[in-house]
Parts: sequence; C-alpha cells; structure tokens
Amino acid sequence: MATCDGSEARAALERSVLRRVPPLLTDLYQFTMAYAYWRAGRHNEPAVFELFFRDNPFGGGFSLFAGLSDCLLFLQNFAFSDDDVEYLRSVLPAGTDAAFFSYLKELDCSAVSVSAVPEGSVVFARVPLLEVCGPLAVVQLLETSLLCLVNYASLVCSNAARFRLAAGPRRRLMEMGLRRAQGPDGGLTASRYTYIGGFDLTSNALAGRLFGIPVAGTMAHSYVTSFSSLEEVWPQTLVPCGGGGPIDFICLVKGWLGRVCQLLGSKTSLVREGELAAFLSYAIAYPQNFLPVIDSYSVSCGLLCFCAVALALCELQYQPLGVRLDSGDLCRQSLEVRRVFKECNKQFSVPQFESLIIVGTNSISEQSLAELNKKENEIDVVGVGTHLVTCTRQPSLGCVYKLIEVRGRPRMKMSEDPEKSTLPGRKSVYRLLDTDGRPQMDLICLSEEAAPKAGVSLTCFPLGLTKTLQTVTPAQVTSLRLDVFTCGQITFPLKSASESRERAQISLQTLHPHHKRLQEPHDYTVALSEQLHSLVSDITKGNSKGSNFLLSN
Amino acid sequence: MATCDGSEARAALERSVLRRVPPLLTDLYQFTMAYAYWRAGRHNEPAVFELFFRDNPFGGGFSLFAGLSDCLLFLQNFAFSDDDVEYLRSVLPAGTDAAFFSYLKELDCSAVSVSAVPEGSVVFARVPLLEVCGPLAVVQLLETSLLCLVNYASLVCSNAARFRLAAGPRRRLMEMGLRRAQGPDGGLTASRYTYIGGFDLTSNALAGRLFGIPVAGTMAHSYVTSFSSLEEVWPQTLVPCGGGGPIDFICLVKGWLGRVCQLLGSKTSLVREGELAAFLSYAIAYPQNFLPVIDSYSVSCGLLCFCAVALALCELQYQPLGVRLDSGDLCRQSLEVRRVFKECNKQFSVPQFESLIIVGTNSISEQSLAELNKKENEIDVVGVGTHLVTCTRQPSLGCVYKLIEVRGRPRMKMSEDPEKSTLPGRKSVYRLLDTDGRPQMDLICLSEEAAPKAGVSLTCFPLGLTKTLQTVTPAQVTSLRLDVFTCGQITFPLKSASESRERAQISLQTLHPHHKRLQEPHDYTVALSEQLHSLVSDITKGNSKGSNFLLSN
Repeated sequence: MATCDGSEARAALERSVLRRVPPLLTDLYQFTMAYAYWRAGRHNEPAVFELFFRDNPFGGGFSLFAGLSDCLLFLQNFAFSDDDVEYLRSVLPAGTDAAFFSYLKELDCSAVSVSAVPEGSVVFARVPLLEVCGPLAVVQLLETSLLCLVNYASLVCSNAARFRLAAGPRRRLMEMGLRRAQGPDGGLTASRYTYIGGFDLTSNALAGRLFGIPVAGTMAHSYVTSFSSLEEVWPQTLVPCGGGGPIDFICLVKGWLGRVCQLLGSKTSLVREGELAAFLSYAIAYPQNFLPVIDSYSVSCGLLCFCAVALALCELQYQPLGVRLDSGDLCRQSLEVRRVFKECNKQFSVPQFESLIIVGTNSISEQSLAELNKKENEIDVVGVGTHLVTCTRQPSLGCVYKLIEVRGRPRMKMSEDPEKSTLPGRKSVYRLLDTDGRPQMDLICLSEEAAPKAGVSLTCFPLGLTKTLQTVTPAQVTSLRLDVFTCGQITFPLKSASESRERAQISLQTLHPHHKRLQEPHDYTVALSEQLHSLVSDITKGNSKGSNFLLSN
Repeated sequence: MATCDGSEARAALERSVLRRVPPLLTDLYQFTMAYAYWRAGRHNEPAVFELFFRDNPFGGGFSLFAGLSDCLLFLQNFAFSDDDVEYLRSVLPAGTDAAFFSYLKELDCSAVSVSAVPEGSVVFARVPLLEVCGPLAVVQLLETSLLCLVNYASLVCSNAARFRLAAGPRRRLMEMGLRRAQGPDGGLTASRYTYIGGFDLTSNALAGRLFGIPVAGTMAHSYVTSFSSLEEVWPQTLVPCGGGGPIDFICLVKGWLGRVCQLLGSKTSLVREGELAAFLSYAIAYPQNFLPVIDSYSVSCGLLCFCAVALALCELQYQPLGVRLDSGDLCRQSLEVRRVFKECNKQFSVPQFESLIIVGTNSISEQSLAELNKKENEIDVVGVGTHLVTCTRQPSLGCVYKLIEVRGRPRMKMSEDPEKSTLPGRKSVYRLLDTDGRPQMDLICLSEEAAPKAGVSLTCFPLGLTKTLQTVTPAQVTSLRLDVFTCGQITFPLKSASESRERAQISLQTLHPHHKRLQEPHDYTVALSEQLHSLVSDITKGNSKGSNFLLSN
C-alpha cells in the first residue's frame, strides 16, 4: 500500500492520461448540427448550455458530482486532428461545404467559459452542475464528451458514497472491480471515482500509479491451487525478523500445525498439503505481508494452515496481517475465525493475533453490506467489485446537457413528457444553510438576480410543488458554482483524487442524516426563485419573446 | 453514413488504439503472487489457465464471445515500462528482492500460447472460451486484463444480439449510448461490440472512424430550441436538386405550410416559428439529409413543420429522409405520422413521402422493443442508448480465469459454493451438430482424448445433471477453439468489427430457435466426457495425486 498524492509528477501523469479523450468521441449529429449553424452563419452566436441530472440515483436523496478534472483537461486540449477532419469529410453528407472542414481544423475552446460545482460536492437532481458558455457550434460539439465524462464518474462516485455510508465509518472498503468494468478505461474510471466517493483502497495497480490511490492485494485462489506439495516450497528457511541464522520454516510450521490441530480438536490429516505449501511459500516471500485467501478448499482447512504459518511467523517476530474469506456466509465465518484467533492468543500468548484483520469479498452489494452491518461479524475490510463498478441498482445517472440561452435570450425545451422540459436562462445556484450549518435548500435564480442574503427571508417555488410559494430565511448562503474555465484556460486548480475525496467526505458530513439515509430519505428542497419561476411560466404559456409562435403565414 | 471495412489503414488505426491497454492495468495481487512464484523458483513452471463464465447472461440460453482481438493485441504488446516497474517497487512490500524488478522489466508473452473460440461465436456457460498456456508467473499476471477485455465486450455483444432478436430482422438498430457508458473507452467498447452483436449503426463518430461502423445522426432538441425566428434562417434560398436559379425557400415552405394545415385541419398559428426556422435551416444546409426530431415542443406541431419543409424539398426534387420521435408513446405517434405521410402523398402526389423513415428513440429496453414488436407501429429505425450499453438487466457477465494445470498436473479449485468449483486439466471442446446442422451439445473432453466422430455414438455427463450418463450420436463435430497466439505471435488473422459481426449473425442463425428465444429458452447441453468426469470425481474425493492431503505429522 502506498500513496503519493499531490506530487507534481503524478499530476502530470494524470493529465497525460486524461487528455487522451479525443473530440471525435462524440455523436455524429453534433457535426451535422454544427454544420447547419455554420451554414446559417450562427456558429459564433453566444450560447449557453447547462448539465444536470433529473433524479438522484439509487432511490437516494443525494448524489456526488465528479468528472470535472476530466472535463477541464478535455476542454483545454479540444482540437480536431487532420485525420479526424478527413474522416468527417467522408461521413458527412456530400453537399457539405469544404470551408466547414477548414473551420473545424481551426476550432478550439479559447472562446469557451465554464462554471461548475467543485468535484466531490454533494449535489441534487435538477440543479445545473456545469454551465458552458461559448460560440453556439463549439458548445454544441462538446455535449456528448462532457456527458460521457460526468455521467459515469458521478454515478459510481455516488454509489461508492452509499457503500461507505452502508459500511459505517470503521470498516475499510476496497474497490476491486477492474475485471467487471466496461473495459480498461471503465475500470480506471471506476477506481478513481470510487476512491473519491469514500473507498480506502483499490486493487487496480494502474489506478494506484496514476491517481495515488492506496493499492492492496495479496493472493487469489489460483495461487493456492497451483501448489500440490511441500516439495514446491523454496527456500524452506526464513531468517527471524530480528536477524539471526535461517530457520527451517517448514519444520517450524509443521510443529505449530500439530499444536493448532490439538487446540482446535482437528486432525492434521485434514490439511491439504498444497494449501499449506502455498501459505508457507507466500509467508517466506512476504513474511510481513501474510494475508492468504483461506477458502480455496474449505475455510476450516484453510484456517488451520493459516494459524500454523502465522504462529510460526510470530515466533520469528513477524506480524502476519490476516485472512481473506471469499465465499459462503462471511459473517458466520468471520466470527469463527476471530474465535480461533483469540483462542490461539490465549493458548500460545501471541498478542499479534489480536490485530489480525479479516477481509471479506463475495459479491458484496450495498444491501448485503447494510445487512452485514446489522449482523454480528468480525470483518474489518470489505472488498467490492461488480456491484460497485457496474452500479447494478442503476447503471446510468442520466445526465443531460441542455441549451438555456442563445444571443442573450432564454431557451427552453418543452416536451410531451413534462419531466423532459428544461429550465430556461442563465442561472446562479445558491445553497442555503440552516442555523446548524446544514444545507436546507438549493435555490436556482436567474443570473441577473441579487444573491440571497443570510438572515433575510425570501420566497421561492420548490420544484415538484408547482404553484406552492415557500418562505425561507437562510442562516448562511453559499454560491454553489465557481468559474473553472475561462476563455480556454483552466482557472480553478485541478484537484487530485485525494483532494476531491476529502471534499466529498466534508460535503457528506454537513448533509443532514435524513437526507443521506439510504432508504426513504427526506426530499431535499431544490427551488426556483420567483423570477425564474415566472420566466418558466411565461415561456410555457408561449408568451415569451423567446419562443414565438408563427403568427403570420 | 460510411464504412470502409477491411482497409489496411483502418486495421492499423484499430491496433494503435487497442494496444494502449497497459499491463499495469491489473490487480496488485497478481504481482505479489508473481513475486512469491519467482521467489520459490516456480515462475517458469508451465501452467494453464482457462477463461469462462458460469451463467448465460440476461436469463437467456446463449452468449456471444467477444474481445478476442483486444486480448491478442494486449498479449502481443505486453511489457512493463521502467516507470511501471518503479511504481511497483514503491508499493510492493519492502522485502521484495530487487532482482524481481529486473525480471519484470524483461517480461513479455513470448512463451505464452492461447487457443480461443473465434470472436462472434455463440457460446454457452461453463465452456472454456480461452486457454492460456505459459510460464506460471506470466499467465498469472495476465488474468485481470484478459478478464477486463472479454467480460464487458462479450456481455454488451450478447445484449446487442438480444435487442437484434427482439427487434426482428427488418428494423434497423442504432447504438447511441456513448453519453451513458463508463467513460470514453467504455463508450467506444460499447459501439464496437454492439455492432458485432447485430446493430446496424452507431452515433459514435470515433467508433465509426476506428472500426468502420456506419455512423448516423442529424439533430438534437437543442438545435431546434436554439432557433426562435425565421430571421435566423440563412441563406433563405435553395437551388433545386436538378439545378437552376435559387428559389426563396422560406416562401416556398410557408406556402406548403398553409396547404398542409388545411389538409390536416390545423391552424398555422399553432406552429412555432423557432421550430420551423430550425427545420428550414437544416434543410437548406442538408437538403438530402433532412431528418429532424419533431417533438421538441409537441409532435403535432413538429409534424406540420416537417411536412411543409419536406414538401418544399420534394418540389425541388430533393428526397427528405424522415423524422425522429424522442418521447411519449412511440407506437401511437408513428402510426399518426405515417397516416399524415400517406395523406400528403395522396393529396399532393409526392411519392417521396412513401419512403420516409420514422426513427424512434426513447429509453428503449429489450422489453420495450419486444413489446413494440407486438404492437402496431411504423417505426423503421430504433435508437438505443442506456439499456444497451449499461446492460441494465445484468451489468456484468462474471467471466473468471482459473488455473487448470501446473507442470502437467491438473489443478482444481473446490469451494463451499459448489458453483465456484472449477474443471481441472487441459481440455478440448467440441460442438456436436444434429442432422439439421444445428448445435445440439458442447462436449468438454480432456485434451489427450480422441475427438468424437460424426455418426459414432458417445456417452457423456451433461453439466448440472451429475451422475446422469447420456448417449448422443453427432451428425457433425467441430472443434470450438483455434490456436490464436503461439509463442508471442498472433497466429490467427485479427478480425475487423464487420467480419466478427458476420460470424455472429451466421453463428446465431444456426442456433435452434428454442435455444435463442429471449424468454424461457431451452437449456443447451454442455457435457463432460466420461474421462473428464472421472478426473473431477477423483479430485473431489481427494484421491488424485494432484491434490494430496497432508498425511504425515
């Protein structure tokens, strides 16, 4: 396990990976639209999009926002290669004006500005998380890539936060989902954002190297089953931790095995020679890192082997780490394992056995973790793979990127599905805190409105309760978004994974327990200012200048 | 839309992308195990792993195998950089022998060989899809990366095949899930493998460029809502398809709008000026590619605008393409839209309106696609995003990579969960076909056994029915796996996405309908030869030399 957060070298490395997102990784219709704007001479009209999601994921009351660093690096490096443009020439309709391709070759984000919620912040449905301003054709072209970078990052980060809440603060959580993710980059993304969401460790070595996430892991079943005989153990000796001549370790372990079997009323003949050989061999290679998986054949056999080897290590003044359980009833097994550890200490006076850890890994879901928390067990570290990285309960967050203003005029999409409608106009978003410093409401205003003031009452329309005017007096007011990208330059320090992780923890701590509980949370209020509410009403009724009906024929 | 399959340039491009999977993208425990093998002098022992999954996904009767090209390119390029090794030095336990890091720096797959099922083949649970032979430490190190490359590729490919079956052969399917995938690479992987699974198109431009997948797309709602007035339309003229002077296209469309409204009994005052401007502008830019999304405000308004613009295009001898519906009841809307198209043709004699297509995109799932197939509708092309790429119904395939032989001796993992046990020993896998040429059984034999012969009866043990001996006489026998990688070299031509797609279609066609039906399929039989069955029994009983119990002490 190691971490080296904040180093310049790592930051550079991180950038070199993240900037690989090519601008061609987008939907083709972004180009046909950009062309139509360009053809109409509208491509440089100032336009504003905002990015948000419509429902908090996993039936919960909150989400975490993540993916911002990736977005900023993507924007900073946004440029089409000649090959990209040649490809587009080959797939866009035949009539496309050649000058459009020259235009694409010149394109960058030097006229784009972005304000955003900082990465790792607790956020809520319908609140605009990212506001992207710039030339209409350019900000349109950014849509799919930005969504792709925010959607999964925020989803898996929020999922991790829920696992963290389900696990309680004491238990350590390890992400081990690489083999179940959507390919290599999916796995890397999962490791980064589950760490930000509150996991402590990852099994993913590359994620450790790139993002400074502490890595962990010792052995798989294949290691155990690869051994069949004590003859495969080599060297057969181990030098005591404090120094001295090499000790015949096999002999030492065999001695302990006899005593352990006697203590536990087991027969040494039940022990698998291959399993014992595997443990011996690993302990000789890594005497300070001994944490075998003990259920390759059966937990009772594996536990005998573990105790024998661990006791021998203790005799040589090494500190064994613990065991991993990977199948069956983890709670029941962990209790039995702990009982045996205590009995060993009582019988053989090995205080090292008091600090042995038990790792559990067996298709852990949020639900099984919550259940595990309710049942008696002795599991110290939980490893989670599939259910964490694939977000089984809800594998998509559903972020959208909607046009809200063109040439200073508010734009709104209405829809036959009311929830697919959008909120028009440029906005400011404020988080109102109560007297305990806890978030009580997110207020969405039009950007030209004055900011709400602490201690001053205001009226607003909570979303989901149309026409219900509510009065609130915030104890504190904070602005939720910051300017992070201005005219092509990143203007907000890129946060390392561990900095964003810290923000997530603090952000979650201030959230009221009834908003963050996993089942049936209280709804957090997101409200519109009176002015924004009026604008929505006007446009919906078709009265706004911004959405004329065709009156003449 | 364009495709350029099979070109050398594209193949090279594809390789350049896929080979980026770095060997450090693996679980840390692969390195601790490799070290323990190395320390015991076992790292070069010949070992064999196999890769399989335990259950067919989505409650179905089959899966498609995919990800092989990625695996082969990964193997061919497998090498640790100096930076990788330095990172490992910083995270592996302090006692790790420095010579191990020199060993890692030299490592490659020149001693590794792989046999595999060809990409795009129909496969079944428990059948070993990939057999990887080589030095113990090396083949151990490959585990996570190979699983990561096969798991999601096969899952999403199989999901696509189910959507294809649900859609029926006539309807075209378009993948548009980039914004909902697990980050950029997840999206790219999804586009490639859903195409192989039977999709016809993707919205993903980069996937089009890299893999030669036909791309499609025209406009989003934001394009429509970005317009508010006919003054934004420029140029306002269009030259007829056959040539001639520019025609005032706005004027032409306004004329048609009046006639369409009259025909349909609508008022022109219901038409949104912005929506009409958007359609006009797009049609002027792309008169041969006119396929607007028509529900930005309401389908009835959008349809009026579409008909007016499309009729004007027809008058100038252009062929409009059709419309996209993105919300509400797609079936009902498509019927109404088709009715209006027919009425326009009847009234205005525009045969072009007979070939207009209707595209439907609105959170389509396998189930909603199957339901759509049962209801009357006029949808020609279905676009699928979230449910396709995230595999909502089952977001993980659960492939595993298990040790089956070391130094010529079979290895087996037993477990307290019986289904987590493995099949020991090197194997050959045969597909037995019936007299109709349809697969009837996959037979797993030990590799030293003679191949089954067509027309000769054999006895075997179907999996899941232990102790039930079954007799079968195959009409044809094919070997399921081929040698694809031998001593560090790819020995099987890498297939392009479209070649693998063709194989998938053929492979699915030969499968009996009762095995490929989406609900309650018949179980396909996977059986063990008598000899393999005996080996499993022997090892389970603990009688095999390969898994000695500790008899002494």
